[in-house]
Amino acid sequence: MINVGVLGATGAVGQRFVQLLASHPWFNLQTLTASERSAGKNYRDAVNWRLDEPFPDSVGDIVVSKTDVDSVKGLDIVFSALPADLATNLETDISRAGVAVCSNASSHRMDKNVPLVVPEVNPDHLGLIDLQRDSGNDGFIVTNPNCSTITMVSALNPIQHRGLSDIRVATMQAISGAGFEGISAMSIYDNVIPYIGSEEKKMEAETLKIMGSFDGSVITNAPFSISASCHRVPVIDGHTMAIWVDTKASVEELKNDFRNYKAPFTGLPTQPEKSVLLFEQEDRPQPRLDRNRGRGMTVSVGRIREGVRFIAMGHNTIRGAAGASVLNAELIVSKKYL
Amino acid sequence: MINVGVLGATGAVGQRFVQLLASHPWFNLQTLTASERSAGKNYRDAVNWRLDEPFPDSVGDIVVSKTDVDSVKGLDIVFSALPADLATNLETDISRAGVAVCSNASSHRMDKNVPLVVPEVNPDHLGLIDLQRDSGNDGFIVTNPNCSTITMVSALNPIQHRGLSDIRVATMQAISGAGFEGISAMSIYDNVIPYIGSEEKKMEAETLKIMGSFDGSVITNAPFSISASCHRVPVIDGHTMAIWVDTKASVEELKNDFRNYKAPFTGLPTQPEKSVLLFEQEDRPQPRLDRNRGRGMTVSVGRIREGVRFIAMGHNTIRGAAGASVLNAELIVSKKYL
Amino acid sequence: MINVGVLGATGAVGQRFVQLLASHPWFNLQTLTASERSAGKNYRDAVNWRLDEPFPDSVGDIVVSKTDVDSVKGLDIVFSALPADLATNLETDISRAGVAVCSNASSHRMDKNVPLVVPEVNPDHLGLIDLQRDSGNDGFIVTNPNCSTITMVSALNPIQHRGLSDIRVATMQAISGAGFEGISAMSIYDNVIPYIGSEEKKMEAETLKIMGSFDGSVITNAPFSISASCHRVPVIDGHTMAIWVDTKASVEELKNDFRNYKAPFTGLPTQPEKSVLLFEQEDRPQPRLDRNRGRGMTVSVGRIREGVRFIAMGHNTIRGAAGASVLNAELIVSKKYL
Amino acid sequence: MINVGVLGATGAVGQRFVQLLASHPWFNLQTLTASERSAGKNYRDAVNWRLDEPFPDSVGDIVVSKTDVDSVKGLDIVFSALPADLATNLETDISRAGVAVCSNASSHRMDKNVPLVVPEVNPDHLGLIDLQRDSGNDGFIVTNPNCSTITMVSALNPIQHRGLSDIRVATMQAISGAGFEGISAMSIYDNVIPYIGSEEKKMEAETLKIMGSFDGSVITNAPFSISASCHRVPVIDGHTMAIWVDTKASVEELKNDFRNYKAPFTGLPTQPEKSVLLFEQEDRPQPRLDRNRGRGMTVSVGRIREGVRFIAMGHNTIRGAAGASVLNAELIVSKKYL
Repeated sequence: MINVGVLGATGAVGQRFVQLLASHPWFNLQTLTASERSAGKNYRDAVNWRLDEPFPDSVGDIVVSKTDVDSVKGLDIVFSALPADLATNLETDISRAGVAVCSNASSHRMDKNVPLVVPEVNPDHLGLIDLQRDSGNDGFIVTNPNCSTITMVSALNPIQHRGLSDIRVATMQAISGAGFEGISAMSIYDNVIPYIGSEEKKMEAETLKIMGSFDGSVITNAPFSISASCHRVPVIDGHTMAIWVDTKASVEELKNDFRNYKAPFTGLPTQPEKSVLLFEQEDRPQPRLDRNRGRGMTVSVGRIREGVRFIAMGHNTIRGAAGASVLNAELIVSKKYL
Repeated sequence: MINVGVLGATGAVGQRFVQLLASHPWFNLQTLTASERSAGKNYRDAVNWRLDEPFPDSVGDIVVSKTDVDSVKGLDIVFSALPADLATNLETDISRAGVAVCSNASSHRMDKNVPLVVPEVNPDHLGLIDLQRDSGNDGFIVTNPNCSTITMVSALNPIQHRGLSDIRVATMQAISGAGFEGISAMSIYDNVIPYIGSEEKKMEAETLKIMGSFDGSVITNAPFSISASCHRVPVIDGHTMAIWVDTKASVEELKNDFRNYKAPFTGLPTQPEKSVLLFEQEDRPQPRLDRNRGRGMTVSVGRIREGVRFIAMGHNTIRGAAGASVLNAELIVSKKYL
Repeated sequence: MINVGVLGATGAVGQRFVQLLASHPWFNLQTLTASERSAGKNYRDAVNWRLDEPFPDSVGDIVVSKTDVDSVKGLDIVFSALPADLATNLETDISRAGVAVCSNASSHRMDKNVPLVVPEVNPDHLGLIDLQRDSGNDGFIVTNPNCSTITMVSALNPIQHRGLSDIRVATMQAISGAGFEGISAMSIYDNVIPYIGSEEKKMEAETLKIMGSFDGSVITNAPFSISASCHRVPVIDGHTMAIWVDTKASVEELKNDFRNYKAPFTGLPTQPEKSVLLFEQEDRPQPRLDRNRGRGMTVSVGRIREGVRFIAMGHNTIRGAAGASVLNAELIVSKKYL
Repeated sequence: MINVGVLGATGAVGQRFVQLLASHPWFNLQTLTASERSAGKNYRDAVNWRLDEPFPDSVGDIVVSKTDVDSVKGLDIVFSALPADLATNLETDISRAGVAVCSNASSHRMDKNVPLVVPEVNPDHLGLIDLQRDSGNDGFIVTNPNCSTITMVSALNPIQHRGLSDIRVATMQAISGAGFEGISAMSIYDNVIPYIGSEEKKMEAETLKIMGSFDGSVITNAPFSISASCHRVPVIDGHTMAIWVDTKASVEELKNDFRNYKAPFTGLPTQPEKSVLLFEQEDRPQPRLDRNRGRGMTVSVGRIREGVRFIAMGHNTIRGAAGASVLNAELIVSKKYL
């Protein structure tokens, strides 16, 4: 068994990590960290469990540690659900202490030597781990992208080989993306907020890196442009987005690409049966009905139309955050980086 | 005073017509029609009033008529809130009976000789009325566009002179656009429905006609392409949309266009102080906070960004339906077509 | 294996039946009926699956039958998700054809010889089956109560032995209780509807029957009064209710009753680990967080206060409808009525 | 003109005060206070205006003051929208400085010499002002009750003369009652929270004081018991409640009481045409449709049934907070306490 921990285990993404790791077949969840206020309590008492999935009793008695290097030293992998301002230095320090960090934080995503990985899309980017290890320690940082980026690149991946350019994306993002307390009910109920701080820049920059090519030493950005417009809507979980791509392929060819798509690996525990699922009905996918497909790890696409326009939708705190990070860790293990 | 009536006065758009006309300074609301079931009752008893604005007592005693030609013969103007299948023949018959029809129905919007008008955008298209009258009767049909089209063309109008091309629009449309009973709560609560039947085609075709040029005999479509992706979100009133346009103008030039924009007429009773309002805050406009500006007749825009991308939002049953039709009627009167 | 079918298998409760029965360890789901429009199609094509749980592929190829006696003759048990107007005669006819009917419809709940059963509360009422069989056929009807009644009687059951009187209940009921199309979004969004047709009468009459005593031939109503006020709130699933009871027991005694409560049977497949779960936190139970406990079969209670007042909450389409009926069938089988 | 100010003018209740006072016929709004962070800015820039009513431009240039005694000294009346912890000492200090304080804060509501007033219910309780003045200064404090209390006592007032006892009330309260940032969207969307801190105690204690009798020196509590159960539901504005009362009066007598009810005064500017409005339809009142009646000052009642049970609903931030306080001030002026 591989010993793992979660940094920031009481927040919205932290609880998802715990849910996914509590009975994981490869990973032994040993350490949960949180703020000073929670440290020393049993996780059961420290957390206000707010997922609809039941609380995993098996980890209820873990004593919560402070969020620092000492708490996780000796673990094989640590998953980070930290806010970016805390993550920046601490993730570096933890990796230097010899621990593999699989991070959902944005701090290091764009660092030159840090892989920004969606397993189905750019598993070869894990090669950057070797460059991080050149500095002589065993630890490293691997990041997953922003929740809206993951859904988009997962949906573009099966058709990237057709040649894509001039991508536009308008998102309709769920409330949970801002954490349990991030958005007040008075702000979003019966409303749309047409702005999510720095989200558009993240979607644009991260997508170019992820879909870029890696020659063993550097990543060259993907050769297309992206223009994003990001909006919050009153939905609990599930980011929906309208995507336009310029391509010479026909709608029917693209549909077949989606229908025939297979992930480039099998056997990872968190991997869904279908990483990308094409809907043929004209009114799908829909977040409430489709976000839990593949236990929240399937990205759904539909309405492939002339233009070319289509809809993509994915669960933002599972496929778009904690599940993404856990799948990265499984890929890291299966590729023997650990 | 000009005597007017409303066809289909008990539905969602019909109630808006009644609200706007009950104390109109130019129009004397005389006739309200509805289905056979309601005919013969006082409007007060026939209608299940569901607007938050209070029921206008002054029209409560009007006896509801059947929806047919005889009920409205002799009126000066009739406003149509009929569904398209009923509107097609009936609106033609009513206009042939000498009545001016201001219609919110989609049936005749794309007819060659029928003006499809947003007063601020293409008032000159009313010239088509003369062509309808060539056939010898006094009546005519003037239509307003679909609710989402109105918001978009209103927002494009102040910047059209810059030269626009390659327009993309992703809408986040309100529930009321489908009528009081159109969408079940189980369908849309905590959800996005990424499909609205025939809405995308309407937005594309109607916009090209409205923004096209009229040479006195025919309308030539506007010389740009539009690609729409339409989505329903859990909002009561107010359609929000993300719009991309290709233009050589800078973001600052466009902002100034919006700031300096003035409607090409004054003095119409339903006209708002500002037809288009530019927000400078980065998170506006928002439907719940901004839909009632200008008594629901103001289209709000914001977030003009490189790309060029921006947000537009308008009240779909006032500016986008009943209010649009009433403003058309006021323009018709002020231009002496009646 | 026991062969079963579902009457009305495409609606909201029908889909819940299918979800619960598709992989049931005792029941072999053979027959699914629906309206003429759907008959003859594969269930996969006939149904618009709208639960968040994935569609059960194993039953996708069942050819949908018409809803009549012939379609279900020969089955051991048929579950009825029919509307009351259809259920009245058809359920009687089916039972006379020798089939056991476990019905969620309201038609026969108050019939003198028909058991109205919540397994944990009044399993002995199944004795009425013998009286139905006196008429000489093997079939019979067993009903489960209305969704709001089930939650209330489940919550009262552990404390009934204390002596209860003068019960008041104010419900906050979920949208799904009215079926997929029952309530329009314009009606309930940002709103409360303080009326649910005939719900208050059902809660009052059904509770007295269920909590009444059975002497082997007739049921005597429970000796207390109930006054209900029923309201619809914008919640997808899960009926919450505030209950007052007059009792001499102390709050602490009642809490202990809830803590120590055990169902009077074990081993039924649909039975949750805990039929009734007491929350100690002051702000629970909550429908979104707690409705799926015990796979939707647990009734949650909390906030036991002087008064005596408390909160009860249960999943209305699982514990309150389809799951209730399946659990009834399991009880029937375990008690060898079949 | 009477010079007035608002303490805490940027919050949810503070904005309502500003909306109601900006163009008030008797009151001249001179002073707006807020936290240090806002002090010194124009109100226009200090406030994030979040009501759907448009921002009142006439007060946009008022320079925001710090929330202290000096800022309001010399005013005739100050309205307090402060949180209770700030209000306790500051309101006392301001009244001692000779200013009349009309407070929406809970701090002094239960003070022996402080009137807790709903003008239609207990205008005579203003007599306590004289007792406050015994201490020799001109200032005084008058409070209005909690938002849910106001709706209930307003609804009980027309029938109190029938003799009432054993009151039970279950509330379904709106989100805005907790302020703009009080409740996260993740907490309340698709959910009910069956707990509002100290709300039940407030409803019980405040109602007994308001409906109590005043003999010129002390208030004797009303001679009945009240038991409240308070719940938050996903509604923006408008508290709905189910109320039970024991009374010998018949349902028809009570309906007539409501129909014939008239406020004990006329001519106050904020007073609605009808303080209490009886709905005859079985599904009303509803918060979204009825909260704005009487510009938010009308309390709606309906569904008077055997039991006796009925529904009451009022706008919580207008009738239940700022509007209540302004109406108190108008009563104070009309009764010449100033």
